[in-house]
Amino acid sequence: MSTTLFRQADLAAMPSRHRAHFVNSLSGFKSANLLATKSTAGVTNLAMISSVVHLGADPALMGYITRPKTVARDSIDNIETTGVYTFNHVHSLMLPAAHQAAAKFASDQSEFSECGFNEGYVDDFFAPYVQESALSIGLALVETVPIRHNGTQLVIGKIEWVKVPQTVINDDGYIAIEKLDSIAVSGLDGYHQSQRIARFSYPEIGCAPKQLHSL
Amino acid sequence: MSTTLFRQADLAAMPSRHRAHFVNSLSGFKSANLLATKSTAGVTNLAMISSVVHLGADPALMGYITRPKTVARDSIDNIETTGVYTFNHVHSLMLPAAHQAAAKFASDQSEFSECGFNEGYVDDFFAPYVQESALSIGLALVETVPIRHNGTQLVIGKIEWVKVPQTVINDDGYIAIEKLDSIAVSGLDGYHQSQRIARFSYPEIGCAPKQLHSL
Repeated sequence: MSTTLFRQADLAAMPSRHRAHFVNSLSGFKSANLLATKSTAGVTNLAMISSVVHLGADPALMGYITRPKTVARDSIDNIETTGVYTFNHVHSLMLPAAHQAAAKFASDQSEFSECGFNEGYVDDFFAPYVQESALSIGLALVETVPIRHNGTQLVIGKIEWVKVPQTVINDDGYIAIEKLDSIAVSGLDGYHQSQRIARFSYPEIGCAPKQLHSL
Repeated sequence: MSTTLFRQADLAAMPSRHRAHFVNSLSGFKSANLLATKSTAGVTNLAMISSVVHLGADPALMGYITRPKTVARDSIDNIETTGVYTFNHVHSLMLPAAHQAAAKFASDQSEFSECGFNEGYVDDFFAPYVQESALSIGLALVETVPIRHNGTQLVIGKIEWVKVPQTVINDDGYIAIEKLDSIAVSGLDGYHQSQRIARFSYPEIGCAPKQLHSL
């Protein structure tokens, strides 16, 4: 395959929407999560996000990137006022409804009802989870870190609870998320199913990685 | 499938390695990139990372999460002293060598030669790219943002150049990375191939998403 080199001037010359598709494709495959919140007035909200990032296991912290004045505005408002939110894996059967959750619904509309998802609750945790999702995570806001170069923020949360089918959890803790049909995202609007190639043993010098037997 | 609810006390009770596998699996699928750098002494370095996150298209910014005292230490040292680095997609044929790049090689060893990858260079850009990778991105360090809760850092870079085969770029800018056989990661050590289910049109109120025809 012949390869093309794009420099900064080439990126700058792209029409805005073209550049958005191009640059959003570069990182590689991304996770697909529905971010669920509820306002103090009781209106639930869903936003489709592909920027969830693992920050640490102990304490168990996860982050995601939010833009101050976009479709995700209701979400970050609700997170800042209520302190809690959930991430919910998107599975192939949840398409295209999960994609549609990114449309600009009014603040008094719930993407749950508008897009056909059902709310669930864990104990007295204020934020709903998505019942159609097989893996949901309840988080408490720890900090929002401003990224001054473009006005985005890294929203950091501590895991309060995890809801996941026991049958996909391996003895060593690894969760076989492809067995849940969790999907991956590329670019702004590409959705992908996946098959595991392999799991490999912990990398050590002078010792080729071995394939791990795994669910 | 019966579902299990794990609370904070359950996470705290997990053995450390078990918790690492479990919590690292939660975010969903992650990108697989080789981070390539070169020290001022001329030693090249590779690190396998799964935390690359899109931050913005204009300016074109990407981030990744680094831990201060781990295998990625040479990488962040090189980034801070030279100001430049590259992300390189991992394809299935690069396994398990790319996984092995995460082993704790000494600072004077290059993971390029130790793991069987070849260095390439764009003009006078100081950091190497990985020749075996079909999609490489040259970045200049913009800022490292400390995450005080666990000592990790968000490393923010501005895209200087992108090397990608023209044949996988759609007219609208979307790059069909699955045609490059770029892989996805789950947990600490799971690698996945993917097939695209669909691309969907920009979500708009009152209008069901349409499938986009696409490479």
